[in-house]
Amino acid sequence: LADRISLATLNDATLDDFAAALDGIFEHAPWVAAAAFEARPFATVTALHDAMMQAVLIRAHAEQIAFIRLHPDLAGRAARAGTIAPASVAEQAGLGLDQLSDEEYLRFERLNTAYGERFGFPFVVCVRRLTRAAILDAFERRLGQEPESELKTALAEIGYITRLRLAEQIEGPGAPTVTGQLTTHVLDIHGGGPAADVLVELYEIGPAARSRLTEVVTNADGRTDEPLLFGAPLRMGTYELIFHVGAYFARRGLDLPPQPFLEHVPLRFGISEPEGHYHVPLVLTPWSYSTYRGS
Amino acid sequence: LADRISLATLNDATLDDFAAALDGIFEHAPWVAAAAFEARPFATVTALHDAMMQAVLIRAHAEQIAFIRLHPDLAGRAARAGTIAPASVAEQAGLGLDQLSDEEYLRFERLNTAYGERFGFPFVVCVRRLTRAAILDAFERRLGQEPESELKTALAEIGYITRLRLAEQIEGPGAPTVTGQLTTHVLDIHGGGPAADVLVELYEIGPAARSRLTEVVTNADGRTDEPLLFGAPLRMGTYELIFHVGAYFARRGLDLPPQPFLEHVPLRFGISEPEGHYHVPLVLTPWSYSTYRGS
Amino acid sequence: LADRISLATLNDATLDDFAAALDGIFEHAPWVAAAAFEARPFATVTALHDAMMQAVLIRAHAEQIAFIRLHPDLAGRAARAGTIAPASVAEQAGLGLDQLSDEEYLRFERLNTAYGERFGFPFVVCVRRLTRAAILDAFERRLGQEPESELKTALAEIGYITRLRLAEQIEGPGAPTVTGQLTTHVLDIHGGGPAADVLVELYEIGPAARSRLTEVVTNADGRTDEPLLFGAPLRMGTYELIFHVGAYFARRGLDLPPQPFLEHVPLRFGISEPEGHYHVPLVLTPWSYSTYRGS
Amino acid sequence: LADRISLATLNDATLDDFAAALDGIFEHAPWVAAAAFEARPFATVTALHDAMMQAVLIRAHAEQIAFIRLHPDLAGRAARAGTIAPASVAEQAGLGLDQLSDEEYLRFERLNTAYGERFGFPFVVCVRRLTRAAILDAFERRLGQEPESELKTALAEIGYITRLRLAEQIEGPGAPTVTGQLTTHVLDIHGGGPAADVLVELYEIGPAARSRLTEVVTNADGRTDEPLLFGAPLRMGTYELIFHVGAYFARRGLDLPPQPFLEHVPLRFGISEPEGHYHVPLVLTPWSYSTYRGS
Repeated sequence: LADRISLATLNDATLDDFAAALDGIFEHAPWVAAAAFEARPFATVTALHDAMMQAVLIRAHAEQIAFIRLHPDLAGRAARAGTIAPASVAEQAGLGLDQLSDEEYLRFERLNTAYGERFGFPFVVCVRRLTRAAILDAFERRLGQEPESELKTALAEIGYITRLRLAEQIEGPGAPTVTGQLTTHVLDIHGGGPAADVLVELYEIGPAARSRLTEVVTNADGRTDEPLLFGAPLRMGTYELIFHVGAYFARRGLDLPPQPFLEHVPLRFGISEPEGHYHVPLVLTPWSYSTYRGS
Repeated sequence: LADRISLATLNDATLDDFAAALDGIFEHAPWVAAAAFEARPFATVTALHDAMMQAVLIRAHAEQIAFIRLHPDLAGRAARAGTIAPASVAEQAGLGLDQLSDEEYLRFERLNTAYGERFGFPFVVCVRRLTRAAILDAFERRLGQEPESELKTALAEIGYITRLRLAEQIEGPGAPTVTGQLTTHVLDIHGGGPAADVLVELYEIGPAARSRLTEVVTNADGRTDEPLLFGAPLRMGTYELIFHVGAYFARRGLDLPPQPFLEHVPLRFGISEPEGHYHVPLVLTPWSYSTYRGS
Repeated sequence: LADRISLATLNDATLDDFAAALDGIFEHAPWVAAAAFEARPFATVTALHDAMMQAVLIRAHAEQIAFIRLHPDLAGRAARAGTIAPASVAEQAGLGLDQLSDEEYLRFERLNTAYGERFGFPFVVCVRRLTRAAILDAFERRLGQEPESELKTALAEIGYITRLRLAEQIEGPGAPTVTGQLTTHVLDIHGGGPAADVLVELYEIGPAARSRLTEVVTNADGRTDEPLLFGAPLRMGTYELIFHVGAYFARRGLDLPPQPFLEHVPLRFGISEPEGHYHVPLVLTPWSYSTYRGS
Repeated sequence: LADRISLATLNDATLDDFAAALDGIFEHAPWVAAAAFEARPFATVTALHDAMMQAVLIRAHAEQIAFIRLHPDLAGRAARAGTIAPASVAEQAGLGLDQLSDEEYLRFERLNTAYGERFGFPFVVCVRRLTRAAILDAFERRLGQEPESELKTALAEIGYITRLRLAEQIEGPGAPTVTGQLTTHVLDIHGGGPAADVLVELYEIGPAARSRLTEVVTNADGRTDEPLLFGAPLRMGTYELIFHVGAYFARRGLDLPPQPFLEHVPLRFGISEPEGHYHVPLVLTPWSYSTYRGS
């Protein structure tokens, strides 16, 4: 991040420098930066992004559609061939969308074709905000929308994409929150205190398979030292936490049956706001548990 | 069950008829029925079983071990060859122990060998009370026991086996409870009432795989019309209920995100008392749930 | 209840006998029974009541108001003087409305006057469905309604009053549910089973004071042998259950501090549907508890 | 607190200055400071206190009893007459023990007499750690102890008293925690987020009456800006939080009955560790709630 440009520098830049600094944030659309240039100075990075988005949102539908058409297909031929914008390459690669099996590639191709025929522009989604399974879900759900709603959705996704790019390239006050966090807490209401040293696994749940993202161990306060996906973006999708509570209660020396009522407790939940805070605690005894979306 | 003999008939029978009627309850041990004969009449089927077990329990350890030795290996060569007692055949077949893969057969063979070397008698377990995975767990756990404890455990298992056989063959008052039940209840504390029409799946969880046992739909009271494994024995083991609550809340018309917090809620729990009542309710909102072992 | 008339008898009765049998159900309104007579025969007691109410509901507003005017003031001069219909006397006496303090009498008088001035008819409420505190709440709330809504509410209350009277005097199939029930259940999720021998007190909560209605002790299943107000009507109002859990955990021999976290657990709740089933369980450990409106 | 002496100053002081600085911490026992002087320097205030207590704990029982005898009776004649140590005066006055009714005074006098007869020394308790009701409970409970246990309890109480006094008079690293805190959190699992603007009252519960300590309103995170008894010591005793949830749900615009299931939710709990953190959350819907001792 050493090469980030400061907001103050941008505010003082000439139009050429301003446009050059923001090149690539909105793909193939230098007019966006040019329009935003008029609104200087910006108090916050968020205000700069709002001004850039505004330049898009005031256009007529036909112009917006023409603008969206400049985006590449998701996981499409261009991505395979590597002939898309460098930022798009990195974003799609983060989910492995550049390395699909032939079967997956065909599924995306079918969806891309159906979507293009229905709406006249490619499917745009901010891939850093979703798991692979959630992208496919969104793809199918959005195929069923009315064209006008879908146009709004596509522009909102461009808003997410460009906000993330801007936050990476420009430093300054009022940077947007670009990722939320996932935390947990294990409270033992049998013993009357936090449950320490509980192994917790985190899985991402796909339609056919699950993949293990991380494992952590609770500290003396029953929490984890860092949020659960610290350092990686939180993505819209379905997750499962597995708490190894049988081993915990065994260490406490409770007299439980060899086949205890609770051994591995799964909590399966969806994340729909990747910028939000998801606190998913486990309040438990050897004979019960509860969870909730906390704050 | 038309051929069951009544306890009254047994109470009035000659020694020969009494012994004939109880032949096969305790394998290869006609002396058990002969000893119990002395204690007639029996007020209940349970009292008859107690008297028969007593005949075993008063014997010296060496005699008890000789008696246990007459039982076949579990999933062993004799079971494969079909040369074990008919009741044993049926019991082992109920879990598919007569149709193991070569790999599973070798695992059982290794365990049988280790067990026989350590204790001097075959591994006896009441297979109708356990899932296949629970049998392997129990096998490994019991291998680690002290010989005296293991002798007690083996005789207790013979108690379970013979109690089940007796309950099937003798009718009369005071029949022992031979199987418990599993029930659930879905309560929607967002709406303030029972959750009807919720699809609930039940799985048995093995070490490597899970198998789907049944699916039910909750009725207007949020319960199921029958217990969840009605008609089959409840077995010691690990289970998972999956509640399809996303579809339920969608039908209620709540304004939830496309990726709801709760879509499929898994409750994973162990059953250690196959004769007990396991009530495993789900108390839920779109943002929380709790469960407990109820009654 | 030996003198109840059967629905079958009513269905075969002459108009005179029919009207005589139903005299007093709708106060001072023999035309109600006469109108219902035309709709014979009735398959259920509820159908008979529906027909009688229909005779009222089809009238013009002016006639309905004239009909309501024939009802006595609640806790008014007539009730004090004993010059109201016998059924009204008993109903008002059930709440002690015939024995008010001077202060309470004045409060009712003020409300009666204000209500009469606003709506032109006396305040009618089915007193058997409410606690005294709930009646005062309802009185004040209804004073704020629009006249048309209040007319509907008053007729609905007459519906409740006459339904109860009918259920007492006529026997036959399809009798309406005239009272709900209140049940509880104490589940100890520390021990993993029902909590037996827990003392539970039930209070009615008024604005200034609380009155103790009953106390019960949980049985081996953690429930009470009878619903909590068995034999008395469930009334709309505010209630509190107090569970003596400190003594229960002490008997279990748990090592808890001299000042335990939970000693007496109060659950305070409102009943708004006196014909409903209110199941209010307590799921607890020494360090936690939860409750919900169950079913 | 401007006059507090620093631990560094104490560590460098002469015996006379050291003893003078600590005068009054242990009542009428200058030998305690003198003994501790030998153990200088102290890294922490807690280490200083430990050294002072050690000087007491190594004495023979008879000497310890003689030392305890120098303490005044609780709420006794001396306290009424004002002839006790200044620190004691302030501590007893904090609970109003200097202004008892005649009846309360007689009850304390009876307890003081019985205690003195049984143990040969006055009842000592760290009054800043208990509510008035909890002091009476502790008095009665300790009267039933064995003399040896009670001697230990009395010395432990002197430990609490002197630790508080020391923390007030000496500043430096490692000051002991002298008071815990009480916090709450209201989570609305119907709406899926924190419940803001909920009025919460806190009461102290005595055997006969309750007294209102404070009221707060939850902030946007469902918490309170300060702990609930911020600025005052947390005392062992029984408390009740009353959450005004009916008004909260009404503001959310939910369609609930005029007599809602939950209007004022009481959570009654005991505090046994005045130095601990008591987090007592309310997790609620209009139809349910739960609480637990959190962390």
